Amino acid sequence: DCTKDLRTMKKFAGNKLVTSFGKKIIAIGRNYVEHAKELGNEVPKAPVVFLKPTSSYVKEPNPIEIPAGIGEVHHEVELGVVIGKEGKNIQEDQAMDYVAGYVLALDMTGRDLQAAAKKKGLPWSVAKGYDTFTPVSDFINKAKIQDPNNLNLWLKVDDEMRQDGNTNQMIFKIPFLISHVSNIFTLQEGDVILTGTPSGVGPVHVGQTVTCGIKDVVEMKFAAVERGS
Amino acid sequence: DCTKDLRTMKKFAGNKLVTSFGKKIIAIGRNYVEHAKELGNEVPKAPVVFLKPTSSYVKEPNPIEIPAGIGEVHHEVELGVVIGKEGKNIQEDQAMDYVAGYVLALDMTGRDLQAAAKKKGLPWSVAKGYDTFTPVSDFINKAKIQDPNNLNLWLKVDDEMRQDGNTNQMIFKIPFLISHVSNIFTLQEGDVILTGTPSGVGPVHVGQTVTCGIKDVVEMKFAAVERGS
Ligand SMILES: [Mg+2]
Ligand SMILES: [Mg+2]
Ligand SMILES: [Mg+2]
Repeated sequence: DCTKDLRTMKKFAGNKLVTSFGKKIIAIGRNYVEHAKELGNEVPKAPVVFLKPTSSYVKEPNPIEIPAGIGEVHHEVELGVVIGKEGKNIQEDQAMDYVAGYVLALDMTGRDLQAAAKKKGLPWSVAKGYDTFTPVSDFINKAKIQDPNNLNLWLKVDDEMRQDGNTNQMIFKIPFLISHVSNIFTLQEGDVILTGTPSGVGPVHVGQTVTCGIKDVVEMKFAAVERGS
Repeated sequence: DCTKDLRTMKKFAGNKLVTSFGKKIIAIGRNYVEHAKELGNEVPKAPVVFLKPTSSYVKEPNPIEIPAGIGEVHHEVELGVVIGKEGKNIQEDQAMDYVAGYVLALDMTGRDLQAAAKKKGLPWSVAKGYDTFTPVSDFINKAKIQDPNNLNLWLKVDDEMRQDGNTNQMIFKIPFLISHVSNIFTLQEGDVILTGTPSGVGPVHVGQTVTCGIKDVVEMKFAAVERGS
């Protein structure tokens, strides 16, 4: 109902989402065929699931901070699904009831760190988890998105278009992902599911600017700077 | 000061720690030489760092829930360090100022899932992250622990002693871990660092009971049941 929607919108408005809300970020890897292939990976038979810490959120006008000496850091533009209420073992046909709305997000990835971890069978958490490695937009109420399975996601580095995909290319769709993930982890209000990135990932260097958007919905921009310590 | 200590104790008392506090669990792998060896792993040159979701916390008298069909689930008894205030790039010699106290914890691990993930270079998050895969004790104020680097950690499955180690065997000590981890992720009040497990890990089956403790400090007990769905 309307009262509840207003309450939800208020709660997720502005910086509140990233400072006060959400216990976890659940990210899906290799959820677009062309992206799986571009990194030389098999197309998965089940979702590849990993966690990012909420301490990695950053919002405009703050920059993406690149730690010195960690090698290439890649952009991955993704649609984030914001969970509106607690749930576990959620059925696919009920899943959309658990969605409060969306965010545009970047799943920044220390690609060299990740490649080394993969080779040694080690966790991805460091490669994916540095502070500022999850830039996000303001909260987008779900009423504003007609069809989350047909959104154009795009990303530029400076003036160069790098990623230009559509959520209709996702291997595992949002209701399936919510159901699948909720069978592993209880989902809580404010948790975010990052649904994977289309092809075209590549490095972002200090001094460059990343601009990205969901066509007709939202746009955001982040400068890349070297991390101080 | 004393007022602050009281406030901290109150905030972390009882279930509040696990229901309201903490955004992340940062776990350290292979931090005891004998345990690294028993799983056929090299002794690490840097800490192995991964994330567990706070939705995996469980407290007495609730049971550990083992999902059907995921293979062996292992016990790993660990000392958890509870962070008392926000910090990043923390110096080793300041690190203990960021500690509010401790918890006894189990880092329950889907060992077969983890082995399969390691082989494929995939994340550990699912193997480590199921609901109830992080049993924890009540909060232990740091004033109650004379020397966190000399605590006897033990664990029994039913009547069989399986793990019997001492935190003095940790490869990377608590101040180093806090400093290292805070260079990756901003640490926040209520975050918990799991410091790794001594040798003796092994399977827990449905119907068995896990009892574990920090000698002279705390003891806890969890039944293992099959997870309903
Ligand atoms: Mg991981
Ligand atoms: Mg991604
Ligand atoms: Mg462990």
